[in-house]
Amino acid sequence: MFEAPYLLFLGDAPDGLAAKMAQGIHDWRPEASVGQFRMEGCKADLGIANLSIKEAAAAGAKTLVIGVVNRGGIISQSWKSVLIEALEAGMDIASGLHNLLRNEPDLVEAAAKHGRSLFDVRIPTVQYPIANGKKRTGKRCLAVGTDCSVGKMYTALAMHREMQERGMKATFRATGQTGIMIEGNGVPLDAVVADFMAGAVEWLTPDNEAEHWDLIEGQGSLFHASYSGVTMALVHGGQPDALVLCHEPTRPHMRGLPDYKQPSLEDLRDVALRLAQVVNPACKVVGVSVNTQHLPEAEAFKYLEEVEAAMGIPAIDPFRQGAGRLVEALACI
Amino acid sequence: MFEAPYLLFLGDAPDGLAAKMAQGIHDWRPEASVGQFRMEGCKADLGIANLSIKEAAAAGAKTLVIGVVNRGGIISQSWKSVLIEALEAGMDIASGLHNLLRNEPDLVEAAAKHGRSLFDVRIPTVQYPIANGKKRTGKRCLAVGTDCSVGKMYTALAMHREMQERGMKATFRATGQTGIMIEGNGVPLDAVVADFMAGAVEWLTPDNEAEHWDLIEGQGSLFHASYSGVTMALVHGGQPDALVLCHEPTRPHMRGLPDYKQPSLEDLRDVALRLAQVVNPACKVVGVSVNTQHLPEAEAFKYLEEVEAAMGIPAIDPFRQGAGRLVEALACI
Repeated sequence: MFEAPYLLFLGDAPDGLAAKMAQGIHDWRPEASVGQFRMEGCKADLGIANLSIKEAAAAGAKTLVIGVVNRGGIISQSWKSVLIEALEAGMDIASGLHNLLRNEPDLVEAAAKHGRSLFDVRIPTVQYPIANGKKRTGKRCLAVGTDCSVGKMYTALAMHREMQERGMKATFRATGQTGIMIEGNGVPLDAVVADFMAGAVEWLTPDNEAEHWDLIEGQGSLFHASYSGVTMALVHGGQPDALVLCHEPTRPHMRGLPDYKQPSLEDLRDVALRLAQVVNPACKVVGVSVNTQHLPEAEAFKYLEEVEAAMGIPAIDPFRQGAGRLVEALACI
Repeated sequence: MFEAPYLLFLGDAPDGLAAKMAQGIHDWRPEASVGQFRMEGCKADLGIANLSIKEAAAAGAKTLVIGVVNRGGIISQSWKSVLIEALEAGMDIASGLHNLLRNEPDLVEAAAKHGRSLFDVRIPTVQYPIANGKKRTGKRCLAVGTDCSVGKMYTALAMHREMQERGMKATFRATGQTGIMIEGNGVPLDAVVADFMAGAVEWLTPDNEAEHWDLIEGQGSLFHASYSGVTMALVHGGQPDALVLCHEPTRPHMRGLPDYKQPSLEDLRDVALRLAQVVNPACKVVGVSVNTQHLPEAEAFKYLEEVEAAMGIPAIDPFRQGAGRLVEALACI
C-alpha cells in the first residue's frame, strides 16, 4: 500500500464536510501527515501547515492523499495541475474517489514518466479466497450498527487507540475507503465481488497471537435493505468473539431509506448475536457505542444511562467519554 | 440475452454429472433445444437427437450452449474446432464457465468475422442500481436453504411449472448460472459487486401485477459462512411475501465446511423470517421442500410427515410428489 508521510490534498473543498477523509486521517494519525494543500477558495482547514508541493516534497512527503470529495465523488479537472506537479516532485497519489486515478490518461502518463504510483483504494487489488469458516486464533471485535454511518469506524478506531495506550496487542482492520486511508491498508469490502466478501474478511483478519485483538470496522447494517449482505459477510467472515452495538438515536429513518425505521438496540443485539454464533458460538455482545452528537450533553448522558440499565452492558459515547469502558468489557471474552 | 432454440454442447463429458447444466436445460425447457452435440468419448447423453453442427444449423439452432463442465470449469482447447464451426454456421455461443469466451482470441476473432455473439452468463452485463428498499407491487416467493445445493433452484422451477400449468401468472427469476441458462436471462448474483447485490435482486424482480408471482431462485444459505452475504441480499432485495425452506436431510456437515453442522429447519425458519420481515413485515414461511433423493421411499415419506407435523406447514419433496402443495400454500398470502 501507499507510504506515509502524506500531504493531505483538500483541493477546492466547499466546506469542512467535503474534506471528511482528510479530517479522519488527521484525527486518527496526526503524525502521518506533513501538512495540507489547499487550492484557492478552499473552505476546509485542518489547522496544520499549509505547504506547496515543493515544500511538502522537501518535508519528506511520500504520498499526496486526495482527502476531499467534490460533487459526484470524481477527480476534478481543476486539480490536475497540482496532482501532476506532485508526481513530478516524486510523490505517489492515493485516492478513494469513485472515478479512478488509473483512468485519467494525463495522470497515468505523468506517473509513468516520473516512476510514481497511483493508488485507487476503492478497488480491490487482491484476489481474495472463498471463505472457509475455519476457526482462527486470536480475538476479534466487530462493530455492528442499527444503521449505516452511526459511528462504527469511529468506535473501532477509538477502541484501538485505547488498547494501544494500555499496551494491549491490537490492530484496526479497515473495510472502507476512509478506514483504509487512515490505516494505510485494508479491504474495500463494498467493491468486492459477492462470492469473495466473507473470504476477504477472513484474509483481513488472519490467525494471530491468542491475546491479540482485531478491531474490525463494520459496514452497513443487518437491517439496511441496501447493504445488509455486506454486513452479513463481516459477521460470518469476521468470526467475532465480541460485538459492539453502534447507534445514533436521533435518526427519523434509516439512512437513504425513508420507508424504514431503525431497529431497536435489542433487535440488533438479538439478530446480530444469533448470526454471529453460527460461526462462533462463544460470541458475546459486550457493549453499546452511541453517537450522541445531536443530543445536548445532559440528555446524552441520561440516554446512555437508560440504555445501560435496559441492556445490562456498558453504553457509552466514545467521542464524549473515550472507549475505556468498551475495552474493559472485552475482558469477559 | 441469447436466443433459443439451442444446440446443447456436451463436449467430451466424462460422465452425466459433468453435463448437469445441459441436463437442467433439457429437464426444464425441453422445447428449447433442437438436439445435442457429443464429441468422441462423450459419456453424457440426454437421449435427444445427436446433431452435427450443419444439421443443427439446418434445424434452426440459434445458440450453441456449452452445457458441460470439464475439470477446472474452463473452455477446453479440444472443443475449439467445434465452437468455431458453430460460429461459422451462424450460431451464437453461450457459456457459464469460469474462464470466459471473450478471453479466447480465436473465438473472438471467429465471432467478429461471422457477426456472431459470445455470451458469458457468469459475468454481469448490467450496471445494477443500489437497492432502495421501496415496496414493490406483485408477489414474490424466495427459496432459502439450510445449506448450499439442497434444491432451491429445483423447488422454484417446480413451483413455477406447476403455477403455469394451473394458469397462474408467474415468472422464474434466475440468480445463478444454470438458472440463467434455463431461463435465458437473470442475474449472476455471486459475480455482482457487493454494494449492488440487493439492487440487482430488486432490478430482477420489479413491480408487477398484483396477482403475479416471482419465483426467486435462492443462493447459498444464511447459515453458510462462505456465501451468507449473497443469501442476505436475496432476502432483503427480493422482498419476499413467502419463503419456502429447502433442506437435504442426509448431509454430515455444511457443503465445503467440515466444521459446521446444518441448522435445523426451525432455526432456518426463525432466522430467515426475522430477516425477511425487516423489508416485508407480512412475509410468511409457507412450506418446506426436502430433497430426499438419498433416502429410501418409505423413509422419505416418514421424514416428510414428521417435518410437517413438527412445523405445521406442508413438507414435500417436489421431485417425488410435485410442487402442488407448495403452490396451494401460497394462497395464504
